[in-house]
Amino acid sequence: MQDKANITKALDRIGIAIIEAGNPSANQKEADFFQSAQKIPLTHAQLCAFGSTRRKDVRADEDAACLALLTANTPWVSIFGKSCDYQVTDVLKTTLENNLLMIEDTCAFLKSHGRRVIFDAEHFFDGYLENPDYALACVAAAVSGGADVVCLCDTNGGSFPEDVEKTVQHVCAAFPRAEFGIHAHNDSDLAVAVTLSAVRAGATHIQGTFLGFGERCGNASLCSIIPNLQLKLGYSCIPDESMKLLSSTAREIAEIANISVRKNTPFIGASAFAHKAGMHTDAVLKVRRSFEHITPESVGNHRRFLVSDIAGKAALLERILKIFPDFDKNSPALGRIIQIIKEKEYRGYQFEGADSSMELIIRREINGIEPFFDLISYKVLDELPYDTGSATATIKLTVGGKLKITAADGDGPVNALDKSLREALTEFYPCLHEVHLIDYKVRVMEPKNATAAQVRVLITSADAESEWTTIGVANDIIEASWIALVDSIAYKLLKS
Amino acid sequence: MQDKANITKALDRIGIAIIEAGNPSANQKEADFFQSAQKIPLTHAQLCAFGSTRRKDVRADEDAACLALLTANTPWVSIFGKSCDYQVTDVLKTTLENNLLMIEDTCAFLKSHGRRVIFDAEHFFDGYLENPDYALACVAAAVSGGADVVCLCDTNGGSFPEDVEKTVQHVCAAFPRAEFGIHAHNDSDLAVAVTLSAVRAGATHIQGTFLGFGERCGNASLCSIIPNLQLKLGYSCIPDESMKLLSSTAREIAEIANISVRKNTPFIGASAFAHKAGMHTDAVLKVRRSFEHITPESVGNHRRFLVSDIAGKAALLERILKIFPDFDKNSPALGRIIQIIKEKEYRGYQFEGADSSMELIIRREINGIEPFFDLISYKVLDELPYDTGSATATIKLTVGGKLKITAADGDGPVNALDKSLREALTEFYPCLHEVHLIDYKVRVMEPKNATAAQVRVLITSADAESEWTTIGVANDIIEASWIALVDSIAYKLLKS
Repeated sequence: MQDKANITKALDRIGIAIIEAGNPSANQKEADFFQSAQKIPLTHAQLCAFGSTRRKDVRADEDAACLALLTANTPWVSIFGKSCDYQVTDVLKTTLENNLLMIEDTCAFLKSHGRRVIFDAEHFFDGYLENPDYALACVAAAVSGGADVVCLCDTNGGSFPEDVEKTVQHVCAAFPRAEFGIHAHNDSDLAVAVTLSAVRAGATHIQGTFLGFGERCGNASLCSIIPNLQLKLGYSCIPDESMKLLSSTAREIAEIANISVRKNTPFIGASAFAHKAGMHTDAVLKVRRSFEHITPESVGNHRRFLVSDIAGKAALLERILKIFPDFDKNSPALGRIIQIIKEKEYRGYQFEGADSSMELIIRREINGIEPFFDLISYKVLDELPYDTGSATATIKLTVGGKLKITAADGDGPVNALDKSLREALTEFYPCLHEVHLIDYKVRVMEPKNATAAQVRVLITSADAESEWTTIGVANDIIEASWIALVDSIAYKLLKS
Repeated sequence: MQDKANITKALDRIGIAIIEAGNPSANQKEADFFQSAQKIPLTHAQLCAFGSTRRKDVRADEDAACLALLTANTPWVSIFGKSCDYQVTDVLKTTLENNLLMIEDTCAFLKSHGRRVIFDAEHFFDGYLENPDYALACVAAAVSGGADVVCLCDTNGGSFPEDVEKTVQHVCAAFPRAEFGIHAHNDSDLAVAVTLSAVRAGATHIQGTFLGFGERCGNASLCSIIPNLQLKLGYSCIPDESMKLLSSTAREIAEIANISVRKNTPFIGASAFAHKAGMHTDAVLKVRRSFEHITPESVGNHRRFLVSDIAGKAALLERILKIFPDFDKNSPALGRIIQIIKEKEYRGYQFEGADSSMELIIRREINGIEPFFDLISYKVLDELPYDTGSATATIKLTVGGKLKITAADGDGPVNALDKSLREALTEFYPCLHEVHLIDYKVRVMEPKNATAAQVRVLITSADAESEWTTIGVANDIIEASWIALVDSIAYKLLKS
């Protein structure tokens, strides 16, 4: 639930207008989210609850799911309904007339409770091809029920851009005062093209997911749609100054969702502006647009020359100046830091989601940090069957020359190690009492090597004031966790 | 080199017409490939060597790279050259006139040696927008030099389908007797749409890569283009009967290239026809095209019902019938299986990615499976510092009453456990020698509880014939891995 709140904040920060945050009648967790969401401060975005038209034989004001949409207490509500004749008769198993009533009723019911309503016209493009009159009748029912937006859906992802363009033109012409949206799926590898063609034809509302996540082949990716529309076609989707947040927002959301961003993702992927040595690099240096359709900076991405990656030097300097405003950019420390980061990135570190580990490197190289303790050894024993915790961790370390040996058990090896380390250190650093781990993420890299692969661990810790994230990479998941744990504690002690 | 030969065979088998197999003047390995390639028996495909127009100040018959193209001894040769004025003056640093001569000369030289020639008009669409006369002059030079195909390239991937369509229409009209091709990149997430629009406008030759591999954001993916054109738009790309090979060919090529196929890849990905339980599953069972734009079988893919949250009893039944075609749907085993899956899903299991663990549950409940061994205990020790592997695993188990105790070390706790378990069992089950782990994924759930959270592990194993994925969930990552490992071995033994 905290993940969902964090994604909501990230989408708001970049200027997304409406965030569809789940179906309040799906389960208690979804419903709870909307209650807690009331407290999320939003600047650009408004929340939207997702549901469907009323059931075929129940009034909207007696339909539990429709009522749940109201309890979500969101400015927007989005409801899906059928707009394709055979879907009504063969799947919903009701009459075409009743389906029109279901659409109109439900929109009217939600409007009467002050909601702004999006009607998601499911299977619209298939329906329009087979029976345009009925598809248009569904749109008319939504409009007549007061829907603020009618979103035309290519539900099975099979439509072609040129067909969508023609259809949307017809629909816009038939309802000149209505606002239309487009909802595309990527089954034909055309979701972005379909979305752009609908916009060209008059759609003003776009549904998508930030990285194209979604069932089957995914939804249309906002990361591609937004820059295409705004940087190249002159439309406005998000505040201009937010466009530079596109790449970092994508990575942040992927990190929260624990999904990796493919390197070759258009616009925001690590390889999107990577040029191989030789002819391409030469051409890019001579004429940038030779192999770059936009500037990487415009979407907050970086140009990378694959042989010697010097891309991030300016960005790193900016980061250093945040911590040490008087830092001299000619200092040899800058070169050392670049070297350390390069070497770590080569081994699988990625500091985008682990700013505190990056800050520790910077502070260590510029000001020096005394180690807060010296590890002699740790041993973690994990066993099955077990009595009181499957894992036991023993740690030997010294603080200021004083030896300390502790042991703790836990629900798993990292939990045991964390407890043991805290026990060893709190005698010397009582403020560690305040720290707790709130998030732990694991990613196996180069998974082709399976269990002998590198493992990347991200740990987020918190005290009463703030949260910080640190990273560790190693062959061994326990060692990677240890590195991230130690950074987490170092960061807290430095802060205190 | 064997890899390249195997990819060539796979592309030939599915009916690709021309295979561009490298640049013979790039290095000796590439040149050697073309020599050995003479012996690859090809049914559909012809090989093509890739190079560029002659250098600006050397005759084609004295240019080493042009001569190397001939030594490749391929029926086709593809040469790239500039078709955009500023690329000629600012990057190539020669005159516009000389560039036209370079194009014409090189085509004529290769034609005079009996080659069929493709001229790749680099930066054509950018060039055409800025200086259409010069772009057309480049086409004219290639045609006049005898090029069989002029392939129009969107080299930086920045073009929109509607612009490409108009441009290709103009070009085709200007050269009614020439054959044109399209070469698109995916920087704007539009490569497939751009390719389709060029075909609609008259292009008859398509360049792409099988899974959209390629620098930056990749080339246009043939896996999406071929079924879109052939199954939906009535064009012919490959023999009709080969379309069913699309998914297996993609997986084969990915396997050879050691690149993983994203599950959500259109047409051929594992999730391309996967339906979540509940409304979608219900609709697909009633009307297949509800959420399927084509039949999965038409591209050799499969429908998958994700049995999460079990609204889809019917979907589970379909899954069971695949294994036990005579299963009686009134059997009490169905209820037991649903109960087990529900209970496991509640604890964090998710079978959508772990079909083999699901199959084991079904087989166990319907037919019974004898356990292949009984675990007495395992102990895993992980330590820092370490000598020869950070982890050591000891396992005690019995097979048919016979006690076996083994120990192994590894690069991490799971690696050590895997090695130790295999060592314990291969004496009894020699076929386990053939199994290796090829993927290992970890997901921490409810991360709010941080290191005490539930951990979900997915393990993909393979032998010479197939791949299978199993799942384990526990508080302890090592225990979760153990559960998935045991399932993986059980699945192999059941299969053998």
